[in-house]
Amino acid sequence: MKVSDRRDFLKSTLMATAGLSVLPVALSAMDTATDASASKLKSNAISDKSVILFQGDSITDAGRNKKSNESNNPGALGSGYAFLAAANLLNTFASKNLEIYNKGISGNKVYQIAERWQADCIDLKPTVLSILIGVNDFWHKHSGNYKGTAEIYENDYRALLKRTKEQLPQVKLVICEPFAVLGCRAVDATWFPEFDQYRAASKKLAKEFGAIFVPFQEVFDDACKIAPPKHWTPDGVHPSIAGAQLMADAWMKFVFGK
Amino acid sequence: MKVSDRRDFLKSTLMATAGLSVLPVALSAMDTATDASASKLKSNAISDKSVILFQGDSITDAGRNKKSNESNNPGALGSGYAFLAAANLLNTFASKNLEIYNKGISGNKVYQIAERWQADCIDLKPTVLSILIGVNDFWHKHSGNYKGTAEIYENDYRALLKRTKEQLPQVKLVICEPFAVLGCRAVDATWFPEFDQYRAASKKLAKEFGAIFVPFQEVFDDACKIAPPKHWTPDGVHPSIAGAQLMADAWMKFVFGK
Repeated sequence: MKVSDRRDFLKSTLMATAGLSVLPVALSAMDTATDASASKLKSNAISDKSVILFQGDSITDAGRNKKSNESNNPGALGSGYAFLAAANLLNTFASKNLEIYNKGISGNKVYQIAERWQADCIDLKPTVLSILIGVNDFWHKHSGNYKGTAEIYENDYRALLKRTKEQLPQVKLVICEPFAVLGCRAVDATWFPEFDQYRAASKKLAKEFGAIFVPFQEVFDDACKIAPPKHWTPDGVHPSIAGAQLMADAWMKFVFGK
Repeated sequence: MKVSDRRDFLKSTLMATAGLSVLPVALSAMDTATDASASKLKSNAISDKSVILFQGDSITDAGRNKKSNESNNPGALGSGYAFLAAANLLNTFASKNLEIYNKGISGNKVYQIAERWQADCIDLKPTVLSILIGVNDFWHKHSGNYKGTAEIYENDYRALLKRTKEQLPQVKLVICEPFAVLGCRAVDATWFPEFDQYRAASKKLAKEFGAIFVPFQEVFDDACKIAPPKHWTPDGVHPSIAGAQLMADAWMKFVFGK
């Protein structure tokens, strides 16, 4: 089933089974522009040999083989949303000779991706740079293993983005919203409302830097109206395969409007 | 970009760039019923906890973790078309609690999957069983390491399917066509026309057993009009990530008509 067909299928199924007369939020979310986002990329923003880089923490990492520096290598892309988005991109832009990298590292907070930014970002000269970072900045503080605050996250992230734009003035930035799904193994009510400050900071920075914003919290919240939260993310932080596909679809939708 | 949007995108791009006034074959192939195929599955063929099993050789295996017997496990599904189809299925049928397995083993010929059929197929009681086998039956003979012929492949395969239908009378069978792409590292003109006999046998058996047939040869041949063969399969046998996505899309299209 093609993904947009799936959306139609889900839409018609939901409407048929629940007697809904309005578009379910889970589906409409992907069609709604957010006030923070920059314009979506046009297909012609992707030229021959464009480099697409996914950066982040364990959600991006997804068990990738860190010994490989090859682009478009299945092991090096892990088994999460970055791999699924890469598979779609390499098929969609088949004639473009894209070079796709995943440099997510499990456990990373924003200051830790900053420490490895030269080698793992700047040197790769990405055409499109997608960043998903923040859940550990909150989670490690919440569990007492880190002293950073939402303000530190925002300031560290701003410095990283400033440095990136200075060194890669042409880069097309994609800022992905950190998300957490209540009612799953690792996420309880004590996460909120503090966690929301990290989400808000990422959205604020997307606007500040003219980045495309991918509102993953809304994407997961809406999906949880279709199937239970644990179907999408067993622990509330790390996506299942279904959750990874959900993220890859949303990424493609918000970045390319497709 | 959603996959069906991608098709529209490719379609309009190709038409715009090449001045084509007809639908490119690469795209129309997926919309064409083959005379060998059974009816596509209706969405309601998938009930709660349906088991979907992918069986085959290295193309299905795709580096899966063979120590895991878990369903829906990213490592256990490998990084090929089975994983990509699983991600789509688990998202598309989010509320169905599907259990998806990949039991492909690298290097297998049809008699070798037959040897492990009880544990790796019958015992799993699949609702949908998808088989892709045959390229090694030809390739190992062609390289002088195996004495089987296309006739032996067909007869061994028929015996396996008969046994399967006897033990799992309700199973929905999907037979995937073995394929080989000329002009890549491992595939030269000496493969043809003999290799075509294996393709024809798989199609004949799909008809005999009322199975859905997935015409991968046509899918790859058509894709090679969009990007060079090595983009889809560097050696002509094993798909790249783009080729794996192409296969997963075709599988969803031919099996569910989506």
